[in-house]
Amino acid sequence: MRVDGKHFRSLWWNDVDAVLEIIDQRMLPYQFQIAQVVTLQQFADAISEMKVRGAPLIGATAAYGVARAMADDPSDTNLQHAHQFLEKTRPTAINLRWALDRCRTALSGLHENQRAAAALQLAHEIADEDVQINKRLGEHGLEIIKEIAENKHDGEPVRILTHCNAGWIATVDWGTATSPIYQAHDLGINIHVWVDETRPRNQGALTSWELGKHGVSHTYIVDNAGGHLMQHGMVDLVITGTDRTTRCGDVCNKIGTYLKALAAKDNNVPFYVTLPSPTIDWTIKDGLSEIPIEERRAEEVEQVQGITPTGDLGRLVVTPEGTHGGNPAFDVTPSRLVTGLITERGVCPASEEGLLKLFPEFLEAH
Amino acid sequence: MRVDGKHFRSLWWNDVDAVLEIIDQRMLPYQFQIAQVVTLQQFADAISEMKVRGAPLIGATAAYGVARAMADDPSDTNLQHAHQFLEKTRPTAINLRWALDRCRTALSGLHENQRAAAALQLAHEIADEDVQINKRLGEHGLEIIKEIAENKHDGEPVRILTHCNAGWIATVDWGTATSPIYQAHDLGINIHVWVDETRPRNQGALTSWELGKHGVSHTYIVDNAGGHLMQHGMVDLVITGTDRTTRCGDVCNKIGTYLKALAAKDNNVPFYVTLPSPTIDWTIKDGLSEIPIEERRAEEVEQVQGITPTGDLGRLVVTPEGTHGGNPAFDVTPSRLVTGLITERGVCPASEEGLLKLFPEFLEAH
Repeated sequence: MRVDGKHFRSLWWNDVDAVLEIIDQRMLPYQFQIAQVVTLQQFADAISEMKVRGAPLIGATAAYGVARAMADDPSDTNLQHAHQFLEKTRPTAINLRWALDRCRTALSGLHENQRAAAALQLAHEIADEDVQINKRLGEHGLEIIKEIAENKHDGEPVRILTHCNAGWIATVDWGTATSPIYQAHDLGINIHVWVDETRPRNQGALTSWELGKHGVSHTYIVDNAGGHLMQHGMVDLVITGTDRTTRCGDVCNKIGTYLKALAAKDNNVPFYVTLPSPTIDWTIKDGLSEIPIEERRAEEVEQVQGITPTGDLGRLVVTPEGTHGGNPAFDVTPSRLVTGLITERGVCPASEEGLLKLFPEFLEAH
Repeated sequence: MRVDGKHFRSLWWNDVDAVLEIIDQRMLPYQFQIAQVVTLQQFADAISEMKVRGAPLIGATAAYGVARAMADDPSDTNLQHAHQFLEKTRPTAINLRWALDRCRTALSGLHENQRAAAALQLAHEIADEDVQINKRLGEHGLEIIKEIAENKHDGEPVRILTHCNAGWIATVDWGTATSPIYQAHDLGINIHVWVDETRPRNQGALTSWELGKHGVSHTYIVDNAGGHLMQHGMVDLVITGTDRTTRCGDVCNKIGTYLKALAAKDNNVPFYVTLPSPTIDWTIKDGLSEIPIEERRAEEVEQVQGITPTGDLGRLVVTPEGTHGGNPAFDVTPSRLVTGLITERGVCPASEEGLLKLFPEFLEAH
C-alpha cells in the first residue's frame, strides 16, 4: 500500500545487492526505516525480534531465509539446518512452518546446483501469492461491508473494530483484516475503524499509522474499550486476523481477541476473521488444547515504547520496582464465537464442514 | 495500610495547619508524594485531576472540601455553591454525590456559626466510616477466599484477578477489592493476584505497588490477557470494585471490567464485586441506559506515563501523528454476569432482591 504517496510492500528483494529489504517494524509508527537482511542469523533475528511480524509476512520472510541459506550452501544438511533454525523463531504462526515445509519439499527434490535459484524463485512466488490471496479475501470481505453500508442512512460510516495489526505490513501487501477495509474505502464507502491499542506491543499504533497514511478515518482506543462501544451500538462489525486457525475453525490470534469475540457475541455484533488459507492448520482440531501459546519476554509488558517530548523514540517502565509482568502473546477464540471465516475462496462458517466446503482437497488430510 | 513499614491512610487532616493532606496519586507508583489541599478550587482539582481517585476516596475528599468551604463562609449560598462545584468534578462515582448530599443535609439544618466545626467532624466521620466499611466487607470476602483455599492442594495459591485499583489508596484505607485479599494474606493464606494493567491510566501499577508494599505475590498483565488465563484454569476468582452499582445490581466500573466479566462467565470463574453501600445508587435500575459514562481526555489514551531510563518520571506519545484516541472511562457490567456483591453487611446476589435483603431500609426508596 502507499506511504506518503509511494507504493511499498513489507519486503522486497534487492536484485543489485542480492539481499532482502524489509521495513523495520520495531520503529513503526514513529520512524520509517528500511533494513537489509543478509545472513541466516539475521533472518532468524528479524522474525524473533519482530522486525517483521504478522503470520503471512513471517512465512514469506522465512522463504527468503531459505533462499539465502541455499545460496550459501545448497546441501541437504544445510537445507535441514535452515528449516530448523528458522522454524524455532516463533512458535505460534502456522504460516512459518507452512512456508518452510513448502520450501524443503520443493528444494529437496532438486539437484544441489539448482537449489539457490529455485529457492529464490519460490520465495518470490510465496510473496506474490500472499498479495494475491489477500486481495481476493478482501474482495469477499468487501461484500459483508457493502451489505452493512446499504442499511446505513445518510452516509453514516460503517464502524469496524479491529484488534492488533492484521494490516498490509503484517503481510506482503493489502493485509488480511484491513484488505476489505481498504477496498471498501477505495470504493468510496464511508468507514470508521476502532483500532484496539493491543498491548503489550501496541500494534494498534501500526494499524493507525497504516490507516492514516491511506486516509481511512479511525480512532485509537485502549483494549478495554471495545465491549463498551459494542454495548452502545457503536460497532457494526469486528474483523481480525489470525496466526493459526484449526480445521474446526478455532482462531488463535493476538492476546485479547477472545475478549472482543465474547463482547461481540454478547451484543450480536458480527465477528469475522480474515485468513489466507496457509494460516489454517489442517493437522489440529481443538485450538485451546493443541496450539502452543508463546510466552514472550516480561519486558514487553513492563515497558512501553513511544515518542518522547523531544521527538525521539523512547521507552518507559510502567511497573513499580519489584513487580513482574506476565506475557502470553496469543489466545484462542473458540469457533462458536466466530460469525465467519473470510478466506481467499470465500466466506464460510467457522467449522470443519465450512472450511472443507471451500478447501475440499484437505478432506483426507486428517 | 503500610508503606515502607509506616501506616498511612490515603488522606488525613493536618490539625496544625488545618489543611487536608493527601497522597498525590498521579505520581504513584513511581514517587510517593504528599500534597496539601487548601482552597475549594484545589479540592475540585484534586478530584478532577485524579490526585485522589477511587469512588470512596473521592467521597471523603469532597466532604473535607465542604468543611473547607464552611470554614471560609458558612452561608447557605456557599454551602450550595460548594456542593455544586465539587459535584461536577467527576460524573460517574456515586459516592461523590452521596457524600455531598449527606453534608448538605446535615449542615443546612445548623446555624451558620456551627457549620465549620460540624462539617469537619462529618468529614472525619465519613472517612472513618469508609475504613470500617471496607474492613467489614473484606471480612465477608475473606470467607469466599477461604473456601477456595480449602480446596487447594499442597498450599497452592488462590489466584485472584483484579481490574483497576480498588485498593487502599482508592479508599481511605483497606480498599474494597483488596480488602479480602489483604485479610487473607495476613491470615497466611497463599494468594497470587493477576493485576490488570488497566489502560489508559495504568492503575494496575498502583495495585501492584500496594500489593508489593504489603508483600502479596502478584503478576502485572496487560488487559488483554485475563481471558486467556481463565480459559486455562489459571484464575480461581475475579474481584473488582465499582464506581456505581444500580439497585438491580448492574455494576459500573473502570472500562474493561465488562470484558473480564464476560470471560469469567464463559469459563465458570466466580466474578465478585466489592462495594461499600454508599456506592449503590438506589435511584436507578438499569446501568446501561441510566449511568452517564465519563469521556475523559484523549491525551490519556495517546500518552503513557512511566519511568525513563534515567529514573525520572516521563511521558511518551504512543499514537502516530494524526491519530486520535477515544477515552470512555467506565463500562457497565450487567448483573447477569456478576456472581455476587460483597458489601459491609454480607454477600448477596447482584439483584434488587439480593440488595434489598441486606439493605431493607431502601425498600421504599424507589
